[in-house]
Amino acid sequence: MNIAVIGAGAVGLFLAASFKRPGQDVVLVTKRAEQAALLADHGIVLTGKIKAEKNVQAQVGIGTQPFDLIVCAVKSYDVPSIVAKGESLAHDETRWLFVQNGMGHLEEIAHLTGKVAVGVLEYGLFKEGDAVVEVRGLGSLKIAPFKRMTEQDITVIGDVADGQVLDIHTFPDYKPILEEKLIANACINPLTAITGEKNGALVKQQGYMAAMKSVFDEAVAVLGRNDDEALWHYVVAVCKKTANNESSMLVDYQQARKLELDAILGYLIRLGEKKQIHTPRLLLLYQLLSRGETR
Amino acid sequence: MNIAVIGAGAVGLFLAASFKRPGQDVVLVTKRAEQAALLADHGIVLTGKIKAEKNVQAQVGIGTQPFDLIVCAVKSYDVPSIVAKGESLAHDETRWLFVQNGMGHLEEIAHLTGKVAVGVLEYGLFKEGDAVVEVRGLGSLKIAPFKRMTEQDITVIGDVADGQVLDIHTFPDYKPILEEKLIANACINPLTAITGEKNGALVKQQGYMAAMKSVFDEAVAVLGRNDDEALWHYVVAVCKKTANNESSMLVDYQQARKLELDAILGYLIRLGEKKQIHTPRLLLLYQLLSRGETR
Repeated sequence: MNIAVIGAGAVGLFLAASFKRPGQDVVLVTKRAEQAALLADHGIVLTGKIKAEKNVQAQVGIGTQPFDLIVCAVKSYDVPSIVAKGESLAHDETRWLFVQNGMGHLEEIAHLTGKVAVGVLEYGLFKEGDAVVEVRGLGSLKIAPFKRMTEQDITVIGDVADGQVLDIHTFPDYKPILEEKLIANACINPLTAITGEKNGALVKQQGYMAAMKSVFDEAVAVLGRNDDEALWHYVVAVCKKTANNESSMLVDYQQARKLELDAILGYLIRLGEKKQIHTPRLLLLYQLLSRGETR
Repeated sequence: MNIAVIGAGAVGLFLAASFKRPGQDVVLVTKRAEQAALLADHGIVLTGKIKAEKNVQAQVGIGTQPFDLIVCAVKSYDVPSIVAKGESLAHDETRWLFVQNGMGHLEEIAHLTGKVAVGVLEYGLFKEGDAVVEVRGLGSLKIAPFKRMTEQDITVIGDVADGQVLDIHTFPDYKPILEEKLIANACINPLTAITGEKNGALVKQQGYMAAMKSVFDEAVAVLGRNDDEALWHYVVAVCKKTANNESSMLVDYQQARKLELDAILGYLIRLGEKKQIHTPRLLLLYQLLSRGETR
């Protein structure tokens, strides 16, 4: 099977290493020649809780070569540019797997004509260098069909990965798994970015905990979920499990990089507007964090 | 006239220098012997937009010597400790002037048996050292009677200051002037503390401006003011006038000192609870900033 992983950040590097097995090639698509050269020379190194070294092919930019499986691991705000080039990368039976934060990209990927699945990655990853990822927290990749995907297609994606590296779980419905992750991201990422704290602080300090619960309540109300008790336990558990991690949004904020604000807070705010549900806290956080944008 | 200024931060130093005139003694009460020694040796130096050097007496801690005028310039959360010692510092005709942020201290100072006025200081001050204050922005001290004060008492306070240093305006009613300052503080201080920005950024960046307006709307609703257009212009004008200043809350937050959260946000939140007016944004900011507390 002909596999491409697009995006060579922490998630892309980790997933490329996960899909690389003996006898199966993986092409990792990066934006920078420098990183491609480094990857061609050294492969990908996983350290921390999962140790592995994988040789992958590296390619600068999206070409015209079609793939059987395309794993898209770019930031959510870069999904439209991948979708725009989708035709040149896919044949009729190409399977797409999109692994992003938030749910803002779903509208975009609906434009693809191929078979599309979405995934949620729950590992604590830290990019140590252009070819090195430290796995700080273990978890799984949850995948579900989004469009034109059969149960068998989903199973194929699950089977193709290296089980020593990646734990994949398949689900029949994408909505619950993406919503869960979205809620956790909406609760944890903006609050850690704005306070400069690690994830664990949110459940250690009373004021932060109350702030997080009030943000949670707005997110749950907008999504119309009725399992809020279980969801709250999930969010608290994520904070505890990743206590010493800095959220991706905190890291991006501190480095003045573009934030995934629209995919996370923006999606909930827009949905709230449609449903006429007030989201004053989500809105305030969005406005205060918009400094980080450097589009 | 026998004058004491309690509190030797930027505001206390500035006010002590303001009330020191030829032939009139001012005792500045500080907590630290080190600062008292420095003040005894060098006096107070004002730099920046107002330049002055004033010799004042310095005293460590509140004694039992009574004063005719006591200017209380401690942080709002330290007002209760001054009120508790009030009896030993005052005779029947002692005039008190309280100059704090927020309105949280009003309940406390109602316990004093003497004549009490309150004031709002609108200068941009930066404490450069234990005896040096840089005046970065010009303004005025607005004072008004709070309790047992006649118009004449208020005039006396106004007359006793050095007009070359301090511009004093007297008002018949304390509520509007304290509310105005409270609203400006509620809009500017928490947002600058949480974003790490100078005051001017709040009106330069669209997201911050929208955030500030939404915080303003909650504050105005709670106070039940009907001059919100004029008040909003006032808040924006303060941001522009103090564009290059770091708010006191930002400085305190960065240095992990106790914040005046209760006097500013806390007062509005409690008043909102009483009036059954929702203040989700004020509450979220309060919760997120409570890290700074090091009581």
